[in-house]
Amino acid sequence: MFLARIYVTLKPAVNDPQGLTIRGGLQTLGFTSVASVRAGKYLEVRLEERDQAAAEARVREMCQKLLSNPVIEDYRFEVVEG
Amino acid sequence: MFLARIYVTLKPAVNDPQGLTIRGGLQTLGFTSVASVRAGKYLEVRLEERDQAAAEARVREMCQKLLSNPVIEDYRFEVVEG
Repeated sequence: MFLARIYVTLKPAVNDPQGLTIRGGLQTLGFTSVASVRAGKYLEVRLEERDQAAAEARVREMCQKLLSNPVIEDYRFEVVEG
Repeated sequence: MFLARIYVTLKPAVNDPQGLTIRGGLQTLGFTSVASVRAGKYLEVRLEERDQAAAEARVREMCQKLLSNPVIEDYRFEVVEG
């Protein structure tokens, strides 16, 4: 069994209203040192594959087909055993 | 300037309908090796603090006050310079 930790983030040029709202909330709470916030997704996927390379290939395919929107998002991931 | 990478995840005992939906979508697309999906949030916060320890203390406070819901969520983070 493999565990993939997947991070999906908006591309730098894409507006991030959720991040702006969180920054506003933090500043209202007194966290005035905050310069910027970018919001993304974090996914943990457990999958059964024969080896690490096969698991990484499957996860890359999942990211491209469903987990990220390649027009506006980037993704990165790491796969560990267990 | 420091960059905090913050991961907010549901506690293991908490139901994750978003994760279940993503798992269903992956299986429909043919990713039958997927056993489970847990969905969380990933945040990148840039902040101006005098040193690493001060930045970490501020980020911990942000997580407790706004970025996570301690009843149902866990958080972890790392702070790097730049």
